[in-house]
Amino acid sequence: MKPLSDGERAEILPALDGWTLVEDRDALHKRFVFDDFNAAFGWMARVALVAEQMNHHPEWFNVYNKVDVTLSTHDANGLTRRDVELAQRMDQFAAGIAKAR
Amino acid sequence: MKPLSDGERAEILPALDGWTLVEDRDALHKRFVFDDFNAAFGWMARVALVAEQMNHHPEWFNVYNKVDVTLSTHDANGLTRRDVELAQRMDQFAAGIAKAR
Repeated sequence: MKPLSDGERAEILPALDGWTLVEDRDALHKRFVFDDFNAAFGWMARVALVAEQMNHHPEWFNVYNKVDVTLSTHDANGLTRRDVELAQRMDQFAAGIAKAR
Repeated sequence: MKPLSDGERAEILPALDGWTLVEDRDALHKRFVFDDFNAAFGWMARVALVAEQMNHHPEWFNVYNKVDVTLSTHDANGLTRRDVELAQRMDQFAAGIAKAR
């Protein structure tokens, strides 16, 4: 996987919903907030199946109804299209069940 | 839930396998390392079902084959028997599949 080019970054990253660049590394972060643990872990399970299929895994921290996600591509030492794709799948699965942060 | 008494702490905590007290709060920590994401998330799914049944949820951070777990009882502002029970269930589910840290 190649890192995103400057052109791709300028076009793609601002279009992502609620994802922000991490300060000290080339990675994306988003906090997802759900109604409860059931909803949060149910979402994580859906994401896990897709992540495994993509062979691209998130860094994520869960406590009760919150999941803090960081995405980056270790092999590319920064952001790639895989991160963008996984971010979009996470948003898709969270649609209608995640609350505003 | 009442916090663990001094007697309970002295008796129970040292008997836990690989769990250490967190420095700046009354909580337990352990890192579980598995073969891969499949094993790590499979374990998390088993733990999640038990945690939900206990209505006692972990703080946990996962990246690929590693899961960092912190246990504490928010309502008691520290460790209770519930944390000990969840720690033991986590160990039970990890037996034979988690590697040394």
